[in-house]
Amino acid sequence: MSDDTATKILLSESEMPTSWYNIVPDLPSPPPPVLHPGTLQPVGPDDLAPLFPMALIEQEATTERYVTIPEEVQSVYRLWRPSPLYRAHRLEKALGTPAKIYYKYEGVSPAGSHKPNTAVPQAYYNASAGIRRLTTETGAGQWGTALAFAAAQFGLECEIWQVRASYDQKPYRKLMIETFGGTIHPSPSDLTASGRKVLADDPDSPGSLGIAISEAVEVAAQHPDTNYALGSVLNHVLLHQTVIGEEALLQLAKVGAVPDVIVGCTGGGSNFAGLAFPFLREKLAGKMAPVIRAVEPASCPSLTQGTYAYDFGDTAGMTPLMKMHTLGHDFIPDPIHAGGLRYHGMAPLISHVYELGLMEAVAKTQRECFEAGVTFARAEGIIPAPEPTHALAACIEEALRCKETGEAKTILTALCGHGHLDLPAYGKFLSGELEDHSLSEDAVAAALTRLPTVYG
Amino acid sequence: MSDDTATKILLSESEMPTSWYNIVPDLPSPPPPVLHPGTLQPVGPDDLAPLFPMALIEQEATTERYVTIPEEVQSVYRLWRPSPLYRAHRLEKALGTPAKIYYKYEGVSPAGSHKPNTAVPQAYYNASAGIRRLTTETGAGQWGTALAFAAAQFGLECEIWQVRASYDQKPYRKLMIETFGGTIHPSPSDLTASGRKVLADDPDSPGSLGIAISEAVEVAAQHPDTNYALGSVLNHVLLHQTVIGEEALLQLAKVGAVPDVIVGCTGGGSNFAGLAFPFLREKLAGKMAPVIRAVEPASCPSLTQGTYAYDFGDTAGMTPLMKMHTLGHDFIPDPIHAGGLRYHGMAPLISHVYELGLMEAVAKTQRECFEAGVTFARAEGIIPAPEPTHALAACIEEALRCKETGEAKTILTALCGHGHLDLPAYGKFLSGELEDHSLSEDAVAAALTRLPTVYG
Repeated sequence: MSDDTATKILLSESEMPTSWYNIVPDLPSPPPPVLHPGTLQPVGPDDLAPLFPMALIEQEATTERYVTIPEEVQSVYRLWRPSPLYRAHRLEKALGTPAKIYYKYEGVSPAGSHKPNTAVPQAYYNASAGIRRLTTETGAGQWGTALAFAAAQFGLECEIWQVRASYDQKPYRKLMIETFGGTIHPSPSDLTASGRKVLADDPDSPGSLGIAISEAVEVAAQHPDTNYALGSVLNHVLLHQTVIGEEALLQLAKVGAVPDVIVGCTGGGSNFAGLAFPFLREKLAGKMAPVIRAVEPASCPSLTQGTYAYDFGDTAGMTPLMKMHTLGHDFIPDPIHAGGLRYHGMAPLISHVYELGLMEAVAKTQRECFEAGVTFARAEGIIPAPEPTHALAACIEEALRCKETGEAKTILTALCGHGHLDLPAYGKFLSGELEDHSLSEDAVAAALTRLPTVYG
Repeated sequence: MSDDTATKILLSESEMPTSWYNIVPDLPSPPPPVLHPGTLQPVGPDDLAPLFPMALIEQEATTERYVTIPEEVQSVYRLWRPSPLYRAHRLEKALGTPAKIYYKYEGVSPAGSHKPNTAVPQAYYNASAGIRRLTTETGAGQWGTALAFAAAQFGLECEIWQVRASYDQKPYRKLMIETFGGTIHPSPSDLTASGRKVLADDPDSPGSLGIAISEAVEVAAQHPDTNYALGSVLNHVLLHQTVIGEEALLQLAKVGAVPDVIVGCTGGGSNFAGLAFPFLREKLAGKMAPVIRAVEPASCPSLTQGTYAYDFGDTAGMTPLMKMHTLGHDFIPDPIHAGGLRYHGMAPLISHVYELGLMEAVAKTQRECFEAGVTFARAEGIIPAPEPTHALAACIEEALRCKETGEAKTILTALCGHGHLDLPAYGKFLSGELEDHSLSEDAVAAALTRLPTVYG
């Protein structure tokens, strides 16, 4: 069989990368420091120690190019990694494009997305530090599922606060978390002071990610045997996700392909960075020259419409200040189905890379994205999660541009999860009930007036 | 990495089997003929031609040992085949067993189960014969999903009648079928004479597989451009599924493993036959000596409590008569969550193999099965469909027996699908609401009094 007829490009387990890649030392300038909200001085390890184990705090600030993946983590990774890289022969044919489309599929993981790539090492490092319980928040539920599974691998308890609106609307996610052994509460809950405060004001509060973070952090901060875990945005999370791109590099090399365009969806940014950063390393080294393109929802366009400024990571304003592309920490995105992309800010490291001009960004509305998702599903047999339909919409746009120009570009896209638990959204799209949400300049301007003031 | 640390045993696409295996010529005696219900004479090709293309009718009766898989079918298979064989290291550790457990995972397919293995060739042969539309019935929805996807690959329309009770209870399956481009109707429907007749008697009828079959067959019989497709029971369906076992043989050989015990769940029997028949060939040739064990639900125990007799394949009594283990064609199993195992009869070919003493069978109640499913999910990161939890319960039982005796047996099990769309059943199990259903001898005896009378 020639390379051109292969559908799946697989790596053996012995070819699985044994290190994560840290892009910081390869960038022309270092990213701005994270600041303490009180002193406005750079945060140190001690500031983070109540919530995270020292191994993760070190990874957050490391300037080493590579970080070894512990064997205990590799052992769990082998349940689904190396993940497959697909050549989308049938999609190419359906589109009639001369482009060659490859997609790296993370839906084979226990949670059905890329999230376990970081949940597993986070659980491992916490267990190694003697922690007995992890708390976290979850919106749509992918991250909560991943952490529940990962905690079970290392004998940790896992307690999850899920935004009540999602808790009520997506019962399958709650059941998946419980099947993996996690405990899940709707947020706001009466289990925490911050939850009780919200409920006192509004007993029917639908909750928000900001409130759920407050509850999870409060419980972790109060119990020495309990830590908090975050599923995106932070440097160590992006670091863990680079296993995606490292594998994709090896897989493309097996078939002699070099990407001209790389597209991925961005919410907090960890899936995008995971695929793109190893290729950016190659680009910075002059070994290839791909266009690297982030795709964000038009309803939450932090890169394309936000500003680059210091802001809080959470809605309540309790976290350290991070310099990032933001729509304002109290910005509440419209309720699109790509819940994983509804975050007001972009990972500081991606924001920095964007400012350096090393990548570009576009925004897509959800109907175009679901249309791409249906086209993809019928051709390739995988129903994508709403989040990666954004990447697929941009991928199909590029492939159709190739059809016009006759260029046989090589496109690589991140298919970061399946949509089995998101089928009601497909139902709405197919019945014509799905709405588009865009963001007016006025709405952006209003949100940005509430940014924190930072000197210097 | 030594063979013993590998988690996934993969085949490259170039190693994918290029033939299906037909066990008939290797059996010590041929299976009894299928009879025409009017004449009680063996059916011929002409009897089946209104519903099936000649290529499938030939496969139904072939005595050739191998049937070549057309390249067009192999091309679609490559979207997910060869499927992975896993060594269940983490489950073994959780059980503390010296047994080596391997599972062949079919949940990576577009429908999330083994069903596309036969849906794809059925769609291909129908399209090749000039057919433009396929009709079928579906209960829980796996088969309908598989056929909708397969039809889309060959430009066929696909129209599916789903038992109304399932249609109402499992909305995600309907949405998955529509996402793949299929059309789905609750059955009974007012689109057919048989549906209208039922609705006239009972406008709120919850439907049954028997009624849904009648509707799908009626439409296929009335339109020359339309054929009917069946997802289990028939010889050609079992034939197509043998790609599972052929791959598993190659995969076990890669790590030098030889199974001592093979377990699979049985409803109509196609998944079980698909895994077991290629190993049975090796056993008949004296190359290995595995115990081959079918696991059926205690609420629908056709092999362990049914009788071996000529019976109809459908509830309404419209199909040819097949000699099989049956609980009686009008037997309605209790509503267990393993909807794919709720069939009154067993595939004639499996029934014949069972009568020849070449395999054994056990029955399991659903709470034991779901408990096995949760144990498996937490250890291996895959939430199994309710059907294969039956195989896992028997697998775990065998592994715990090994723990007692100290035997390091090699166990191979068929994990025929994921449970992403069955999470409400896990919720019921975890909250203690799940009921066990067994079948009394009186209930079996009563159903068997209604078997058709066949001379000779």
